[in-house]
Amino acid sequence: MSRFQNLLPVIGAWKQDITNWIQEDIPSFDFGGYVVGNKMSTATLYCKQDGILAGIPFAQEVYDQCGITVQWLFEEGTKIDVSKSGSLKIEVAKLIGPARNILEAERLSLNILSRCSGIASKSNEIVNAARKSNYKGIIAGTRKTTPGLRRLEKYSMIVGGCDTHRYDLSSMVMLKDNHIWSTGSIKQAVTDARIACGFAIKIEVECQSEEEANEAINAGADIIMLDNFTSEELQVCAKNLKETWLNKKKFVLECSGGLTLANINDYICHDIDIYSTSSIHQGVEVIDFSLKIDH
Amino acid sequence: MSRFQNLLPVIGAWKQDITNWIQEDIPSFDFGGYVVGNKMSTATLYCKQDGILAGIPFAQEVYDQCGITVQWLFEEGTKIDVSKSGSLKIEVAKLIGPARNILEAERLSLNILSRCSGIASKSNEIVNAARKSNYKGIIAGTRKTTPGLRRLEKYSMIVGGCDTHRYDLSSMVMLKDNHIWSTGSIKQAVTDARIACGFAIKIEVECQSEEEANEAINAGADIIMLDNFTSEELQVCAKNLKETWLNKKKFVLECSGGLTLANINDYICHDIDIYSTSSIHQGVEVIDFSLKIDH
Amino acid sequence: MSRFQNLLPVIGAWKQDITNWIQEDIPSFDFGGYVVGNKMSTATLYCKQDGILAGIPFAQEVYDQCGITVQWLFEEGTKIDVSKSGSLKIEVAKLIGPARNILEAERLSLNILSRCSGIASKSNEIVNAARKSNYKGIIAGTRKTTPGLRRLEKYSMIVGGCDTHRYDLSSMVMLKDNHIWSTGSIKQAVTDARIACGFAIKIEVECQSEEEANEAINAGADIIMLDNFTSEELQVCAKNLKETWLNKKKFVLECSGGLTLANINDYICHDIDIYSTSSIHQGVEVIDFSLKIDH
Amino acid sequence: MSRFQNLLPVIGAWKQDITNWIQEDIPSFDFGGYVVGNKMSTATLYCKQDGILAGIPFAQEVYDQCGITVQWLFEEGTKIDVSKSGSLKIEVAKLIGPARNILEAERLSLNILSRCSGIASKSNEIVNAARKSNYKGIIAGTRKTTPGLRRLEKYSMIVGGCDTHRYDLSSMVMLKDNHIWSTGSIKQAVTDARIACGFAIKIEVECQSEEEANEAINAGADIIMLDNFTSEELQVCAKNLKETWLNKKKFVLECSGGLTLANINDYICHDIDIYSTSSIHQGVEVIDFSLKIDH
Amino acid sequence: MSRFQNLLPVIGAWKQDITNWIQEDIPSFDFGGYVVGNKMSTATLYCKQDGILAGIPFAQEVYDQCGITVQWLFEEGTKIDVSKSGSLKIEVAKLIGPARNILEAERLSLNILSRCSGIASKSNEIVNAARKSNYKGIIAGTRKTTPGLRRLEKYSMIVGGCDTHRYDLSSMVMLKDNHIWSTGSIKQAVTDARIACGFAIKIEVECQSEEEANEAINAGADIIMLDNFTSEELQVCAKNLKETWLNKKKFVLECSGGLTLANINDYICHDIDIYSTSSIHQGVEVIDFSLKIDH
Amino acid sequence: MSRFQNLLPVIGAWKQDITNWIQEDIPSFDFGGYVVGNKMSTATLYCKQDGILAGIPFAQEVYDQCGITVQWLFEEGTKIDVSKSGSLKIEVAKLIGPARNILEAERLSLNILSRCSGIASKSNEIVNAARKSNYKGIIAGTRKTTPGLRRLEKYSMIVGGCDTHRYDLSSMVMLKDNHIWSTGSIKQAVTDARIACGFAIKIEVECQSEEEANEAINAGADIIMLDNFTSEELQVCAKNLKETWLNKKKFVLECSGGLTLANINDYICHDIDIYSTSSIHQGVEVIDFSLKIDH
Repeated sequence: MSRFQNLLPVIGAWKQDITNWIQEDIPSFDFGGYVVGNKMSTATLYCKQDGILAGIPFAQEVYDQCGITVQWLFEEGTKIDVSKSGSLKIEVAKLIGPARNILEAERLSLNILSRCSGIASKSNEIVNAARKSNYKGIIAGTRKTTPGLRRLEKYSMIVGGCDTHRYDLSSMVMLKDNHIWSTGSIKQAVTDARIACGFAIKIEVECQSEEEANEAINAGADIIMLDNFTSEELQVCAKNLKETWLNKKKFVLECSGGLTLANINDYICHDIDIYSTSSIHQGVEVIDFSLKIDH
Repeated sequence: MSRFQNLLPVIGAWKQDITNWIQEDIPSFDFGGYVVGNKMSTATLYCKQDGILAGIPFAQEVYDQCGITVQWLFEEGTKIDVSKSGSLKIEVAKLIGPARNILEAERLSLNILSRCSGIASKSNEIVNAARKSNYKGIIAGTRKTTPGLRRLEKYSMIVGGCDTHRYDLSSMVMLKDNHIWSTGSIKQAVTDARIACGFAIKIEVECQSEEEANEAINAGADIIMLDNFTSEELQVCAKNLKETWLNKKKFVLECSGGLTLANINDYICHDIDIYSTSSIHQGVEVIDFSLKIDH
Repeated sequence: MSRFQNLLPVIGAWKQDITNWIQEDIPSFDFGGYVVGNKMSTATLYCKQDGILAGIPFAQEVYDQCGITVQWLFEEGTKIDVSKSGSLKIEVAKLIGPARNILEAERLSLNILSRCSGIASKSNEIVNAARKSNYKGIIAGTRKTTPGLRRLEKYSMIVGGCDTHRYDLSSMVMLKDNHIWSTGSIKQAVTDARIACGFAIKIEVECQSEEEANEAINAGADIIMLDNFTSEELQVCAKNLKETWLNKKKFVLECSGGLTLANINDYICHDIDIYSTSSIHQGVEVIDFSLKIDH
Repeated sequence: MSRFQNLLPVIGAWKQDITNWIQEDIPSFDFGGYVVGNKMSTATLYCKQDGILAGIPFAQEVYDQCGITVQWLFEEGTKIDVSKSGSLKIEVAKLIGPARNILEAERLSLNILSRCSGIASKSNEIVNAARKSNYKGIIAGTRKTTPGLRRLEKYSMIVGGCDTHRYDLSSMVMLKDNHIWSTGSIKQAVTDARIACGFAIKIEVECQSEEEANEAINAGADIIMLDNFTSEELQVCAKNLKETWLNKKKFVLECSGGLTLANINDYICHDIDIYSTSSIHQGVEVIDFSLKIDH
Repeated sequence: MSRFQNLLPVIGAWKQDITNWIQEDIPSFDFGGYVVGNKMSTATLYCKQDGILAGIPFAQEVYDQCGITVQWLFEEGTKIDVSKSGSLKIEVAKLIGPARNILEAERLSLNILSRCSGIASKSNEIVNAARKSNYKGIIAGTRKTTPGLRRLEKYSMIVGGCDTHRYDLSSMVMLKDNHIWSTGSIKQAVTDARIACGFAIKIEVECQSEEEANEAINAGADIIMLDNFTSEELQVCAKNLKETWLNKKKFVLECSGGLTLANINDYICHDIDIYSTSSIHQGVEVIDFSLKIDH
Repeated sequence: MSRFQNLLPVIGAWKQDITNWIQEDIPSFDFGGYVVGNKMSTATLYCKQDGILAGIPFAQEVYDQCGITVQWLFEEGTKIDVSKSGSLKIEVAKLIGPARNILEAERLSLNILSRCSGIASKSNEIVNAARKSNYKGIIAGTRKTTPGLRRLEKYSMIVGGCDTHRYDLSSMVMLKDNHIWSTGSIKQAVTDARIACGFAIKIEVECQSEEEANEAINAGADIIMLDNFTSEELQVCAKNLKETWLNKKKFVLECSGGLTLANINDYICHDIDIYSTSSIHQGVEVIDFSLKIDH
């Protein structure tokens, strides 16, 4: 079992999600199940496209709940090279179980693997591209995840080598223009936030200028997001901030928005600690998987 | 209110989904809400990309549950032409509510609108392309929807002008190779299925040859899916079947797989009643929306 | 295991129902369980009345969840002839488990079996009576099922040899007077319905006259329900419709309402494909079962 | 509003049941709702059969959740005399709401009213018959209720004038043969039960003989159920017990099983405080209601 | 396994509570679990404070759900004498399971055991003190339990030797001043209550004077709570009531409020059958437990 | 409305908790509600003990769900000085609603207010004591909260002036001995944790010595918990660490365990940034509230 699996609790809502998703597909009767019956069968799961294999713990839970035994032939996070294999598809797992159980699990498990692997693959591509630009910092996702699938999508970013960024509104404070207008100043907003969130939670402030960034750092922000800077402004501002506060305050710099696989070479600045982008998880191409009962 | 809204029941699990999705984003405390407080505010929802506006009933439910009043400036299904507007974004709705309520609803409503509109837009594009090829039949989606979002995604296909295809395993019977191997023949599989599903449910059979299609039609299948046919074979087989069974049996012909916006001109055969494709809903680009509190 | 079991998905809300129903019976403490304790015990399940045995998969799930091992002595759907047995009751199953577990499962499992078997028995009686009148068509139930028990009751109709008719508002469209008044014509109502439900769902229209039936068939309705016809009118109209549309349109004719075991001989018309009646599932007598711990 | 309504808590699982039951009927889309749309409409609810009107609070909750305003023309518990009215049906309520809302609420509200009124009517008939035999004691139901509908069915018994008997395993202790075998004696079983259930809960013991009844009364049982007595034995035993323990122990006598409307005159013994019977709620005929949109 | 366990149903909401409580502690990812991994480990559960060990069935369910095998070294309800052991802690159980599973179960199982044992210990102390005053009656808790933990807290009272008193508003009727004002008289309130609750449920009346108590007893109340009496008045009133109604009516006398471990000697009156006090379960000190992975 | 309210999301599981808790108290019928009926009534909520008023948003939600209008006479977080008032109780709120609604809401709202106010009061006392010792740092709670009530209890700590400390296993990483044994070194454990939790989450390391603390700080830990230090060792170690890493690494020092109101003067060290203690929320005395219907 891959180490990534250990991120998912032994008991958890994610297992109930699987149950709900099966029920979404069979609200009343399984007429196909009546037709095929319970004959013990074997089946093969194929990957049909190059990419990073991800989503095994979720698919495994589908198979567990459906009473199917699985043998995975690759580990979570492995790069599957279909195009180099000389074949149209690569065997990823072998399944054993009653025919109707396999058919009940089929579509959901494929839908999961294709989405997880799509996100892990895109995340991996962009990290690899950044590393080729010699960037040593973090590429992170966003909170623009599919409703109800945040866990699955954030998990897939991790498998792909990216950072999840803040998970939700409760686990990091992000102060944007709206928050600052409401309180009157960055300093006041950070102070108020700290009262509420306490010492255990980080505070990030979205800043439109170096001046704002200095105010935020001074107020105790843990992360500074530089927003709406041109590439040149970004380089200058990031450098200034790092020098100004050296050995005085600890903070990290984030740059958000617009980063894609296409523009990454132009974009990278080595004083920026984190680039965040929804392009690694939103609207990404799925990886094609299929499942065939052996006969 | 658009007519599409009436597809969603007045009470339903889809409203509970909205509640759950808000909770996904705020599992414990809303620290940002503490910072901004309850001051009554107005905000504007913008569309920043060309596409079909879709997802209003779901977004409306987010706003309703969060105690926000909304005025929509366009109707569900409207084509939003940002690129022709001479602006970078178009106002789509005006919101009024307490500041923290708006910020709690922000991300979820945007995540919903961007996904719904993405699917509706892609569905619309491909239908338009088919109509340009003078195709009069149906373009349908598939069951390869995002786990937990089938309702939202099937709904978006309808807004875009496509057919949802079967909703789940309970509402239509699809007999594939696996089902037929298990029962021994297409005839037996159709007969067994009919016993279980009764007269109220349609039965579709996936056929690999004209011979199989004839057997399926004879057995009483309502829909014949021609699978793995070359474009030429498809033309011939579809024509033969329509002629053979004219005034004898009622059935429709479906062709599945591989259809995309790129290849649609090569693909269309006027004896095929339905083309189904996951390309209208799976891995499609999202439409970008944003929300700004006025200040 | 009976084939009927395969209609129920391996994972599903129906299993959660069982959990909820046990909880309905023991909201806080099981004082009787404290008294009897955990001593491993055997028990016998008896049927005390003639009828079709139905509900085994649901009862089995009760026993599974309660940690009780069961050996069923008859298969789902078997006719139990207590009255011919020379005894007051017939052994239906043997149970092994801790005493308190058996007593916790007792009432729920009996309540389930008695209701399922009651419906299956009544369904079976009426089908048998129709077959004696040489009727070859379908006897179907209705949507007048007990709230929360639709799956269990529709399932029991199937075990008894009847058709479930449409499962819910989402899996078949039924256009009644109200729908037609709202849209202005049968044609318009069918057209509107088809846009929404697509090709995968059947449309039924309730018609008050042959003229309406012709309009509905022409508009593409899949099923025509003849409503409020006298027996004679029904015979004439059904015959006319079948002749008029021979080799032109495919449709089936349904007659609903009023059919009971008592009046079936007067009622049957061989041009009617489906008779639907709530008398097979609503207010039907239960079959008496009991459970005794051996001692 | 009738006083019976006050038995149902202001907040409660029974309201969630209504939501779930609507969802049972519309798992995905409401195609009929799309056809009829949102036009504000009025509708009339009719009772078509003689009986006690029951279930108004549950039906009201359906209408409330569906956004329908209702005016009830009769109070919960009223005897509706259709047969004496000179009409085939009597108006019971007037509804106002959007057309699709009324159609979504229609079937569920009718299913509820028909079942509640069926139970209340049957309960009322048997109590009236007992009163004609001059019986002053209690007629009670049993725990043989439909899974998931215990609240609704017990409530309907009360509306009909019967006693609910124990609600569930947690709210009264019933010691039967199984419990007594396990502990060795009635005295021991009652003592054990009292330790667990405390002073707030009543204990009933099922007794096969006067001797057992004496042991149970002596051990502190609150209710004695005389089981398997002939009518003559019952009279003698009940009289003896009442005389033996006069001014010594307080207990009530229950007789269970076999009592129906048909045999009640032969059955009644004035020393029995409670007759319990499932015939008032299990397998009882439903009362027919219908709902028509005005046009 | 202790007999107390049998009070908790084999299936029940209490098991779902455990799942929910684990989820409360790990809403998204278990980062610590990622660090420690799945290495099979052993651990020891220690009690660090004198008290009655309680909560084993709940803790066992935590361990079961987390896939941990446990060997308990003491039985539920055992007095743990840490202070006499010559050690700072006593081994209570040995655990075996994957490291991350143990750490996921750790905090919840300790939180449960510490609260259950705190209540059982306090309950036990006060019962022991009452017994030393030669009091033979019942010490009971109240409905002032922690929201969501009524089952767990009432259960712990039983383990400690106290009575749970009424479990909830549905399982016993308690008529207080508010109820009596509303109906006009004690007699009317008791009569109304009996109509609703039937014979299976007890009725208690809170009385401010001997006169009220006589009215309540005469009206058929099962339990009389003497409220706001001085110690002397209580003695007199209780004695009078017992003598007045000897061999006429069966009732029990309860005294509520103010009883604590500190004042119990002054308080006890042997004509009072039940003393109820929230001091055994509300705001009681927890018993300290800890869990260490062996290394 | 108090600002603390804004910490609780507009929609959230905490509102469903309230519904569940009402249901815990009325699983089937409200017999008392039947007795008192729906007469519109007013009631007064009293505080009977000195303390910080807390829990208003939760109690308000109880009243909202029960259809009761409330006027609060004090704001959340106010110190209520009953003992100085010359009265035994102070009016805290006025309620208006139907009598049965008020009685259904009564016990739950009191149970909530008494627990929240108990925790807020205890938290406030200890903070005040620390401030008297001139301590400027943070007093924080722990994760030893009551199962299912973490939100309510953490919230109450904030109202009382304390810090919640980490909310759950997902929102901060705490590396203890177990985690470090598993990975081999503090450095490795911190590195592994960072991969999983990313930049948005803080990492705390429990250290047994200054050496370990140095290793943890060097590895990038955000918070250092000094565990098992004597008071003197603590002073020395804290001072050393602050000096060693001045202007090099940013970290905060936490001291946990054993701190109570009684020992706080001996304990405080000004180089410690955070003292955490379960004594502010676990086993704390409740504040007594009561509710009386006016008559």
